[in-house]
Amino acid sequence: MKKSYKKNTKRQDYYTIYGINGCSQVLLAKHLQIMNIDIMKNGNAIRKSYLSNDLSRFKGRVNNLPKEQFLKKYTGLRTQGIVIQFKGEVYRKLKSFEKADNNLFLLLLDNIEDPQNLGQIIRTAECGGVDGIIIPEHNSVGLTQTVMQVSQGAFVHIPIYKCTNLRNQLTELKRDGFWTVALENSIKAKKWFDIDLKGKIAVVLGSEGKGIRKLVLNTCDFHATIPMKGKINSLNVSATVSAMVFERLRQISSYIADR
Amino acid sequence: MKKSYKKNTKRQDYYTIYGINGCSQVLLAKHLQIMNIDIMKNGNAIRKSYLSNDLSRFKGRVNNLPKEQFLKKYTGLRTQGIVIQFKGEVYRKLKSFEKADNNLFLLLLDNIEDPQNLGQIIRTAECGGVDGIIIPEHNSVGLTQTVMQVSQGAFVHIPIYKCTNLRNQLTELKRDGFWTVALENSIKAKKWFDIDLKGKIAVVLGSEGKGIRKLVLNTCDFHATIPMKGKINSLNVSATVSAMVFERLRQISSYIADR
Repeated sequence: MKKSYKKNTKRQDYYTIYGINGCSQVLLAKHLQIMNIDIMKNGNAIRKSYLSNDLSRFKGRVNNLPKEQFLKKYTGLRTQGIVIQFKGEVYRKLKSFEKADNNLFLLLLDNIEDPQNLGQIIRTAECGGVDGIIIPEHNSVGLTQTVMQVSQGAFVHIPIYKCTNLRNQLTELKRDGFWTVALENSIKAKKWFDIDLKGKIAVVLGSEGKGIRKLVLNTCDFHATIPMKGKINSLNVSATVSAMVFERLRQISSYIADR
Repeated sequence: MKKSYKKNTKRQDYYTIYGINGCSQVLLAKHLQIMNIDIMKNGNAIRKSYLSNDLSRFKGRVNNLPKEQFLKKYTGLRTQGIVIQFKGEVYRKLKSFEKADNNLFLLLLDNIEDPQNLGQIIRTAECGGVDGIIIPEHNSVGLTQTVMQVSQGAFVHIPIYKCTNLRNQLTELKRDGFWTVALENSIKAKKWFDIDLKGKIAVVLGSEGKGIRKLVLNTCDFHATIPMKGKINSLNVSATVSAMVFERLRQISSYIADR
């Protein structure tokens, strides 16, 4: 895992995504430029009508490859008969959130290293109405191909920002009117549902093994925890995100109408 | 994925688990019988003192293999220097829950096929205080090695039951005093937090693609949904479990003391 992460973090000219869900989302993304589409003749992808519609809007060339040739080219990948190469700026430019919406909800990830976890976090966050994810530039996995793949294309719709220093970013968010909440494994912290998650909120999550770094932790206004009830005591970080994000939706649901 | 699932569902004489977390839990399990332990000399596993303690309690033979030999034997696995073979009854015997605790919470999984998802569900459920998971005997992935591995050893601590017919099982649970809740993707269903999850509750989750089968759905007392806020509209089933399980803990936390 580590190895492919390092390989993928270097600047690439283009990205590859496969599978119906991921490819559908990339086809919808106006900020990305499709370079190449490979379709397997009579494959699953081409039989899905909604994907055919997306494809018909695409002005470039679509390569319809015979089954044997396609499978040989993409051995070992669960492509569902479609592979897309694209390029473009997958990160959004970090901006001031001072004038942002009253109920803006951001996630800040402190040194998440596992691309599977980041991919799942992005997917869950997109489904759960998170307004943006901020990742530090160093010592974290970025938007690698594995991450994009695992996110099922969710990376297209949710703004993902890089920051140079997470602590400074938190200070800036506080200045812009955010309450900052560190989610950590500590009995001294408040339970996750006892934190008011309405308004402008930034939640920080730590890495799988090490948690949130001390300086980052100390910068946060509140410390929250999800106490474990079992014996293994290790909730996956993406499961933590799910619990937190849907608790926030529960809290705000009473006073905002559904989008 | 499909292929290995089929291969693994056939009755095995023994199971293999690797990695520090998974192995620690198996070492703790009195209902499992350790057949063999392979340790890599000077590997991560042996340097972790809590694992050494578990190992010292083990009466059988531990094979300390030289690094080269160990790595050759377990090429491509993230073993952290420990691999255990064990046997035993990994499922619990299905029983009547009539006289069960007042706040018993069960998950019933209708045809979950992806071993990664089942493994993550077991892990999240164990952390979130779920009292048992019921899986149908047919058309579902069972406790395969991949599932055990992904669960990080959680399968040892949370009772996992097999039933022959999910619908009959639900009827029986209702007779035993459970409220049954189907979690589905429907705008007509109540929001997940508007369902009373206190008391004896059984929540049914459907498969990744097809959801809950109609007959099963119709047997449930309540229909709940977690409305999606984004565009991809596909929350992973294990993320759904997380949202539901921790919402239940929130609801019951006000009137039971922490365990």
